[in-house]
Amino acid sequence: MLRHAIILGGGVGNRMEMQIPKQFIPILGKPILMHAIENFKKFDSKIEIIVVLPEAHILLWKNLCNEFKFDIEHQIVRGGKERFFSVQNAVEHIPNDSIVLIHDGVRPLVSHETIDRVLQAAYEKGTAIPYIDLNESIREITSTGSQALDRSKFKIIQTPQGFKSELIKKAYQIEYSPNFTDDASVIEAQGIEVNLVLGNQRNIKITRPLDLSIAESLMTQS
Amino acid sequence: MLRHAIILGGGVGNRMEMQIPKQFIPILGKPILMHAIENFKKFDSKIEIIVVLPEAHILLWKNLCNEFKFDIEHQIVRGGKERFFSVQNAVEHIPNDSIVLIHDGVRPLVSHETIDRVLQAAYEKGTAIPYIDLNESIREITSTGSQALDRSKFKIIQTPQGFKSELIKKAYQIEYSPNFTDDASVIEAQGIEVNLVLGNQRNIKITRPLDLSIAESLMTQS
Repeated sequence: MLRHAIILGGGVGNRMEMQIPKQFIPILGKPILMHAIENFKKFDSKIEIIVVLPEAHILLWKNLCNEFKFDIEHQIVRGGKERFFSVQNAVEHIPNDSIVLIHDGVRPLVSHETIDRVLQAAYEKGTAIPYIDLNESIREITSTGSQALDRSKFKIIQTPQGFKSELIKKAYQIEYSPNFTDDASVIEAQGIEVNLVLGNQRNIKITRPLDLSIAESLMTQS
Repeated sequence: MLRHAIILGGGVGNRMEMQIPKQFIPILGKPILMHAIENFKKFDSKIEIIVVLPEAHILLWKNLCNEFKFDIEHQIVRGGKERFFSVQNAVEHIPNDSIVLIHDGVRPLVSHETIDRVLQAAYEKGTAIPYIDLNESIREITSTGSQALDRSKFKIIQTPQGFKSELIKKAYQIEYSPNFTDDASVIEAQGIEVNLVLGNQRNIKITRPLDLSIAESLMTQS
């Protein structure tokens, strides 16, 4: 069975208060996106890597790869205006009979155990997405204010999200909706069940300035 | 108007994989709970501090205070079996005409801006709880599996939660229910509206081993 990783480096990162795209910000001296790619390649040296980047960042990325002598082979695919269109472009490059892992380029800290759980469940059941428990109270905003919820019924969803390639390619032929915030929601819109597997707490999404120092602290420890 | 801070040091911390209660674990050389108390006292030197501790930890805490020459005046109240009973014990020590801030002892990083927003809103409206947005997707567990949610409708709830003392003292005369996971849920059970104010992202709850290094990293930065 082939394995492909689609790594999304498509965000413009306007929450980061920095000019440089967030996936290119260095942690421990190396851009976040390179850490993410290396992590997948260390997990599985045979996995095929596809990196999705906005058109405007492709040259910058190639220059960074030269500068850092980054020699992990990867295909570059042009991103779309929304995450949905980026993944839609990327899955066109995946052959049948593969398991596809779709991953946020700003999550360099996913554990190999999590990747393995996603891969196995996607292979057995067609779909797999990693979750972790909430460790704080949550409330739902309602028309009249807000209400307390039982947090044990809600899960934080991470990436990589894994799918059989035929399934995800077919799913992304659907018409775009702004409700599609991740791949699971696209799959689900077609009545296909998504299977939850355990993620890992260190697998944080680097989107805010404070996440940079958190990620650096976690990487130094590992 | 009087101000009181009830700081809960009541957890047994079994998620922390350590023998020492989590609120007593040192960060930058000082127990987390001391950081939390100092933070409130720096915000407002006139605030009255009530620390709630399990009976079994009171002597240990007093010894730590001696060892660290911790000289911030505070009243110690014995905690109950559940968070609810701890707060119930503590609010009995609060006079009328005060604003009470109820805070997790394992949140040493709440900003003074957050405390001020909570205090002001509690003063004006009777109740105030701080929230932050989710920056990851969430799903709800259902009887048949799980479903995607619009994350903009859900908020992470932090502490301190602030109340007029008459209101919170009356609220805690209610009979205990396991659904009471925080003070807002106790207040709400009596039909009183809770008002949301903006919290701060650095105000993390230290409950897991990786939170310790995250907190240390954030504290070093500040």
